[in-house]
Amino acid sequence: MARWQPDTRIRLVHAALDLFTEQGYDATTVSEIAERAGGLTKMTFFRHFSDKREVLFAGQELHSRVLADAIAAAPGPATPLQAVAAALDALAATFSDDRREFSARLLRVYAGNGELRERAASKHNGMAEAMTAALEKRGVPELTASLAAELGLRAFDRAFAQWADPEGRQPLTELAGRALDELRAAAATLD
Amino acid sequence: MARWQPDTRIRLVHAALDLFTEQGYDATTVSEIAERAGGLTKMTFFRHFSDKREVLFAGQELHSRVLADAIAAAPGPATPLQAVAAALDALAATFSDDRREFSARLLRVYAGNGELRERAASKHNGMAEAMTAALEKRGVPELTASLAAELGLRAFDRAFAQWADPEGRQPLTELAGRALDELRAAAATLD
Repeated sequence: MARWQPDTRIRLVHAALDLFTEQGYDATTVSEIAERAGGLTKMTFFRHFSDKREVLFAGQELHSRVLADAIAAAPGPATPLQAVAAALDALAATFSDDRREFSARLLRVYAGNGELRERAASKHNGMAEAMTAALEKRGVPELTASLAAELGLRAFDRAFAQWADPEGRQPLTELAGRALDELRAAAATLD
Repeated sequence: MARWQPDTRIRLVHAALDLFTEQGYDATTVSEIAERAGGLTKMTFFRHFSDKREVLFAGQELHSRVLADAIAAAPGPATPLQAVAAALDALAATFSDDRREFSARLLRVYAGNGELRERAASKHNGMAEAMTAALEKRGVPELTASLAAELGLRAFDRAFAQWADPEGRQPLTELAGRALDELRAAAATLD
């Protein structure tokens, strides 16, 4: 059984997104998601996710780990923002272009629901904490570390929204690098 | 009736915080809060707040307005961070020292509950948006405006936590000004 679980998980995520897009997030039940994922039961759903909301945030723990690992692996003399740039690059590389359309639908579901936006804001903070901790381990003072992490996540969020745009053609790594440069330039004009 | 409403609202907030502190957030019902606030009914509670969680975020719309108004009123040549400093000053001035102990208890209730931390993160974003919009009206480009707003809110959150510390003795205005200076200095060391 266990070796099928990753596939089950992915099927549940896709079934949920399909249903949320078709009939709305609030109107969709866990039973419907399980059924759509190939005749699964509610119980199977709950083996993978704690609730309906969580199914949309699958993978975010993995994202925190990718970001933190890349910061740890950045060359010793890298500045905080250079380490953050390496982290964005690593995370962006996990999003191949065939996930673009899926991501666009995900963003639309988030946008339409306050509860999901709240969870997204809280997950954003979780990723920021992971990056901040990784930067502090490199000897970056806490305040600088938390600002660098925030700047990096903002850059990633902007780049992600551009990438998910159906008109978009550039890879996420390129968009993320450019967004970070823009935010860095903006930070220099604060006072 | 209407002229008693502000008082009712404040009594509900205090009753809620008392009960959350005594018996925990999850274990407290809306009926208990209403009863503790002087024998009120659930219906009265719901005239003031949409749910149990909202009672702890009373006043945050007012905070957004105070911040935005102060940014609008800052002198024309003020830099983005100078306008933000004026906003923090205005908001901090609304917290007199007799609210210190109440605020400390509020922070403790937030800290102990994931759902409340989520709502706090989302409200933080709402205040950031209000400041960003006010800065953009001054002609500050969006990216710079959103960074200045974020820096300001981080400074305020840090200062607020220091101020709420029972050992603390300094007024919130002073702590907020210093926190903003520290974050500004940290931003200068990003790369």
